[in-house]
Amino acid sequence: MKKLINNPNNVLSDMLDGIVAAHPEYLKKLDNANVLVRSKKVENKVAIVSGGGSGHEPAHGGYVGFGMLDGAVCGEVFTSPTPDQVYEAIKATDNGNGVLLVIKNYTGDVMNFEMAKEMAEMEGIKVEEVIVNDDVAVENSLYTAGRRGIAGTIFVHKISGAKAESGANLEEVKRVAEKTIQNVRSMGMSLSSCIVPAAGKANFTLGEDEVEIGMGIHGEPGTHREKISTADQVAEHLVSKILDDISIVNGDEVAVMINGLGSTPYMELYIINKKVNKILKDKGINIHKTFVGEFMTSLEMAGFSISVLKLDNELKNLLDAKADTPGFKVF
Amino acid sequence: MKKLINNPNNVLSDMLDGIVAAHPEYLKKLDNANVLVRSKKVENKVAIVSGGGSGHEPAHGGYVGFGMLDGAVCGEVFTSPTPDQVYEAIKATDNGNGVLLVIKNYTGDVMNFEMAKEMAEMEGIKVEEVIVNDDVAVENSLYTAGRRGIAGTIFVHKISGAKAESGANLEEVKRVAEKTIQNVRSMGMSLSSCIVPAAGKANFTLGEDEVEIGMGIHGEPGTHREKISTADQVAEHLVSKILDDISIVNGDEVAVMINGLGSTPYMELYIINKKVNKILKDKGINIHKTFVGEFMTSLEMAGFSISVLKLDNELKNLLDAKADTPGFKVF
Repeated sequence: MKKLINNPNNVLSDMLDGIVAAHPEYLKKLDNANVLVRSKKVENKVAIVSGGGSGHEPAHGGYVGFGMLDGAVCGEVFTSPTPDQVYEAIKATDNGNGVLLVIKNYTGDVMNFEMAKEMAEMEGIKVEEVIVNDDVAVENSLYTAGRRGIAGTIFVHKISGAKAESGANLEEVKRVAEKTIQNVRSMGMSLSSCIVPAAGKANFTLGEDEVEIGMGIHGEPGTHREKISTADQVAEHLVSKILDDISIVNGDEVAVMINGLGSTPYMELYIINKKVNKILKDKGINIHKTFVGEFMTSLEMAGFSISVLKLDNELKNLLDAKADTPGFKVF
Repeated sequence: MKKLINNPNNVLSDMLDGIVAAHPEYLKKLDNANVLVRSKKVENKVAIVSGGGSGHEPAHGGYVGFGMLDGAVCGEVFTSPTPDQVYEAIKATDNGNGVLLVIKNYTGDVMNFEMAKEMAEMEGIKVEEVIVNDDVAVENSLYTAGRRGIAGTIFVHKISGAKAESGANLEEVKRVAEKTIQNVRSMGMSLSSCIVPAAGKANFTLGEDEVEIGMGIHGEPGTHREKISTADQVAEHLVSKILDDISIVNGDEVAVMINGLGSTPYMELYIINKKVNKILKDKGINIHKTFVGEFMTSLEMAGFSISVLKLDNELKNLLDAKADTPGFKVF
């Protein structure tokens, strides 16, 4: 294992210290929990809390800030945070207007976030939840009943965050989060595994010229393995799986995210984007905005995912609203 | 070679198409050259042009936009752009107020940018140049007489770009660029090589537990190889080399950049930042702003660099000024 770390057992706490040291203008860590919250608590708005296992940075801590999250619960690497950690995040961010939990659909995450929700409700805090399940690759998976939540989650943060910032109430914020989830689909693929520091070795291996299509962000199996083909062929396959799953037609408008999983160069992400852009345009689909970069990673895994979000005027305005966080900025 | 590309010989043109497709609101490609320019040419300001070999994305195309570059010349992977390409960038961006060339110190880049400067001057265009040589690792290197230019270049883009946006004349813009170069130092290290698509194989190899300290962004040799140590030890070594080279003392103010070279996870960059932050704070140095991410990459190389920019009020204000580009945003 060749990693820039100190002790494999301290990577989470070292990382959290490093994030806070880098971005004190945006966020701070709660004393009693592995939770990042805005450095200045906002009053008079619904709070948005997300999180999950670590190793997906900048998700989710990097999205704490204006127009996105109020709190991010940071579990150990690829491990759901415990209910008490989520509960601390809810308590720390609620200002009387209630809290929306944005949960990626993994069994442990859903269970622990829901337990925390119950704990908070017993304290009289209003809590609602949405579960993101944007990955069209497989129906059930390791760690998941139903579809997995992956990079489309960033759009849920962005859109529900903008709605909350506008002063909308909890029901309204939840409604746009649900609408985003209804409208977003993603699928990824991988060229290599990653190494969880505490494990010290790759959790699976791929052959020299082999890739896995539909791979999850923790290395969960995808739909199949195949010999590596061209960027164009891979892009075509993923986009067709996405469009098979949601009706997006001539004249519709979308946002696109090409998300690197960790060690795929920008060069390759842009080459993928060229093809994705062409496929959508050839179908008469208008691309309102494209995001290319690392948004929901899997440590040093090589590969990427494509997310397509179908827009209406409401979603478009919320996507375009100002956001200022370490990992995602919109003017 | 496991890469998401189509044809190794077309990676540059495919990538440029993909960038333009992703960010039409920011940039477009010149018809007759591998040059990215702002989608709407700005009048009444000095133009800033940078560039060099590709494979360092988001540098430099990702920095074309408000408050940073007007043009980026994109050579083949790790290959200097030709003089005529640079010349086209100068002609396309000049609006009568002159052009500042921000050149990283590589022999080919300096030669070709300077030839283009002469060509443009013969056409009556005012052109000035600055040469960035922030890498303290080695004095001469493959491809370089003197020190190499690496991630500190982003600070030069940001600060000269802000000055140009303020309406300053060419001499003033050049002055702040020079001051930035005087005040910035960087050093990197690497855990693995990268693969230039057209070559198809790694240009060097490191042992299982071996790293190279002071490695350049094209795989040029650094100061030495050693057995991998801890993140803290590596950070300490690089920061001490930087501070040996520039007087930054108790009470001084700096900006810090922790730059991933391609496949180093955010987790590790933040762990490095924890230590860098502590070293500087322990010396009484104030950290005004920290940037953590991928700014000047080397395809899929694993490793990172640290840059430290000593600030005065002028540089601080220019660093904090608004910038809106695909790869770098400041509110």
